[in-house]
Amino acid sequence: MTRLHPVIPAGGSGKRLWPLSRVAHPKFLHAIGGEPQSLLMTTYERLSGVADPNDIMIVTGGLHAPKVARELPELPPENIVVEPSARDSAPAISLAAALIRRKDEAAVMGSFAADHVIRDVPRFNATTAAAIEAAADGKLVTIGVTPTRPETGYGYVKCGAHSGVEVLPVEEFKEKPELELAIRYVDSGEYLWNASMFVWQVSTYLEELRRRSPEMHDGVEAIADAWGTDSHEDVLTEIWPQLPKVAIDYLVMEPAAADGMVVTIPGDFGWADVGDFSALAELYEGDDLENVVLPEVVDGVQTVSERFVARDCKGMVVVPGGERLIAAIGLTDVIVVDTPDALLLCDRSRVQDVKQIVAHLEARGATDLL
Amino acid sequence: MTRLHPVIPAGGSGKRLWPLSRVAHPKFLHAIGGEPQSLLMTTYERLSGVADPNDIMIVTGGLHAPKVARELPELPPENIVVEPSARDSAPAISLAAALIRRKDEAAVMGSFAADHVIRDVPRFNATTAAAIEAAADGKLVTIGVTPTRPETGYGYVKCGAHSGVEVLPVEEFKEKPELELAIRYVDSGEYLWNASMFVWQVSTYLEELRRRSPEMHDGVEAIADAWGTDSHEDVLTEIWPQLPKVAIDYLVMEPAAADGMVVTIPGDFGWADVGDFSALAELYEGDDLENVVLPEVVDGVQTVSERFVARDCKGMVVVPGGERLIAAIGLTDVIVVDTPDALLLCDRSRVQDVKQIVAHLEARGATDLL
Repeated sequence: MTRLHPVIPAGGSGKRLWPLSRVAHPKFLHAIGGEPQSLLMTTYERLSGVADPNDIMIVTGGLHAPKVARELPELPPENIVVEPSARDSAPAISLAAALIRRKDEAAVMGSFAADHVIRDVPRFNATTAAAIEAAADGKLVTIGVTPTRPETGYGYVKCGAHSGVEVLPVEEFKEKPELELAIRYVDSGEYLWNASMFVWQVSTYLEELRRRSPEMHDGVEAIADAWGTDSHEDVLTEIWPQLPKVAIDYLVMEPAAADGMVVTIPGDFGWADVGDFSALAELYEGDDLENVVLPEVVDGVQTVSERFVARDCKGMVVVPGGERLIAAIGLTDVIVVDTPDALLLCDRSRVQDVKQIVAHLEARGATDLL
Repeated sequence: MTRLHPVIPAGGSGKRLWPLSRVAHPKFLHAIGGEPQSLLMTTYERLSGVADPNDIMIVTGGLHAPKVARELPELPPENIVVEPSARDSAPAISLAAALIRRKDEAAVMGSFAADHVIRDVPRFNATTAAAIEAAADGKLVTIGVTPTRPETGYGYVKCGAHSGVEVLPVEEFKEKPELELAIRYVDSGEYLWNASMFVWQVSTYLEELRRRSPEMHDGVEAIADAWGTDSHEDVLTEIWPQLPKVAIDYLVMEPAAADGMVVTIPGDFGWADVGDFSALAELYEGDDLENVVLPEVVDGVQTVSERFVARDCKGMVVVPGGERLIAAIGLTDVIVVDTPDALLLCDRSRVQDVKQIVAHLEARGATDLL
C-alpha cells in the first residue's frame, strides 16, 4: 500500500464554541468528544493507524506551535510547520503539499482536520485506504460522510447514488444549505457531507493548483524551496502575506470538480465536526430528560460533574468549567458554558449565533475574553 | 409624640435569594433594593426618622452579630441582642419586649424586618406615627400594606374596606394564598398585605403573650431579668433552647385578632419584602426588552454592569457577581445569579423553588455553599 503523508491543518479558533474555545486555546487543544485527551492528540493517534507517525505534519500558527509541540511530544519538531499568519486553508495545505513533494515526489498526502471526532476508527482506516488507492488514478479525492440527518451546519458534495465504500465522481460542492434544501439533499441519497478530508498525490494537487492559481502555486513552491535554509524567514515573510487568503474548497476543489477532477469515497465512521455546542452535546449520553453534562478531565480521568443540580430541566447542555456549582430550575434547551472569566447561556436553537458574541467582544476590544 | 423603641429582628437567611443570600451573608447584609448600602443599614436609617437611633435594638444570631456591629458603627453595642440560636420570630420579639420594658415600663415598641424595602419614607413615617398613636389604646397594631397586585408570596390581613391611613380592626390573618384566592382578596378591597410590622405598648404585648403562651412569657421574662448580670449566660443557655420555636403571627397575632385585640393601619409606601429574585427584579428598571441587570456597588458607587451581553433575550434578571462576562442568546424570563462558587439559573415562574436547591445542598452536606 502506498505510504500516506498526513497533514493536519490546526488553525481556526472555533468561535461557535466560545467561551470554551479561545484564540489562545482553540478547540483542537480541548479534550472534547469523549476522549480524555485533546482532539489534536486523538487525530494524531488515529492517523498513526494509516501512516508512519513520523510522516504526520501539522500546520499551525505561532501562537499554538509551542502547545502543539508539547501536546505531541513524539512528533519530530520539523513536522510542525508554523504559518506566519492564518490565511485560511488553501495556503496551509498547499505549502504542506510542496514541502512533502520535496521529500517524496510520488507522495500521497491526506489532509485531515485537527478538531473533528471520528467514532469508528477501523472504518475510517478502511475508507482512507480506499482513498489512497483512488488517488493513484491522478484524481483529487475527498472523503465524504454519509449524512445521518439534514444538517445545516455542514457543506455537502453531490456525488450521485451510492452504497458502501466506492469511488464516485463529485459533480459539485454545495455550501451549508437551509433546512429545506438539506432535507432534499439527504432524501435524494445523492449527497455526502463535506468533511474536509482530502487525499491526493502531491504532484496531482500541485498541478491542479498551478492551473487554478499560479500565484498560490508559485508562492508555496518558492517558500518550500527556501524552507529550512538561510533564506527561510526572509522568503516566508515576503511571500506568505501576499498569498490569497482563501479556503481550498473555493480555490481548488470546486473548480476541479466542475472539470471532473474530483472523486469522493463515501465514509460512514461516526464523524462529527463538533462545530457548535449542540453538535458537541450529541456526542454524549443525556439523562432521562435529555440533559447532557459534559465530563471533566480530572487528573487524566473523565468524571461527570456533581456540580450540576437541576430541578425540572430538560434538554440542557452543561459544560462545567470550574469549581462552581451550577443550579438550574425549570429551564428547557438551554446551553450553559461555565469558564472562569465568561459564562455563556444560549438557547439550543441559537448555537450558530455564539459567534455574534465573539464578534461583539472583538468589536469592543475585549481581547482577554477572546 | 410617644417615643418609639424600634426592634429589628435580623435573622433568616433568605433561602429564595440563594446563592446571593447565604447563611453567613444573609439578605439583610446585601446592598439590594436600590441603595448602595445594606438593607439593614437602610432600615436603621429609616427608623432613625421615627425614633432616637440610640433606642434601636437589633436581635440577631451569633454568626451575624459581629457583621451587624460593623455595619452599624454608631449603634450602642448593648443594643445588639444576640440569640443563642434561631427560634423563629416569637422568642426574638418577645425577648426584645421584655428587655425594653425593663428600660421603660410605658414604652411603645415597633418591630420592623431588617430586609424589606420601603420607597416612600415620609409616608412610612406618617403611617408609623399613626400606629404609635393607635397603640396607646392598648391594642396590638400591625401596619398592613395596601396590595398593588394579587401576590401569592405574601400573607394577608383581613380588615374590611378602607381608605387612607386609618385604624381598622383585624378580623383574621391569612396564609399565603393561591393565585385565585389572592385575586379575590385584592378585588374585595378588604385585605392588606401582612408586612410583619408590629407596634404596641410592651405592657400590652407581654400581657397578651402571657395569655397565649405562659411558657414563652415566663421564659423571656426570666432571661430579661438575668440580662447583663452574672447569670446572663447560664439563664440564656438553659431557657432559650426550651422556648417554643414559632412565628409571632401564629403564637400571638392570630389568636389575638380572633379576640378583637389587633388593629391595623393601612400603609401605602412602596413596600416590598424582596423575598425572591422576581420581587428583587421589580425594584429595578428594565431595558426595552424588560431585561433587568442589577447594579453592582464598586467603591461605594452603584454601576450597572457592562458584563452582561445579550442577543434576543427578554425578561432576564441578571445578578452579576464577579469579574466574569455573562453572555446570553435567545433566552426569555431566565434569572441568572452569578457568584464565585455557585451559579443559579431559574425560570422566572419558579423563583419560589430556589429553596429546593438550598434544601438539596443541605441534604448533601454542602455547607460551604449554603
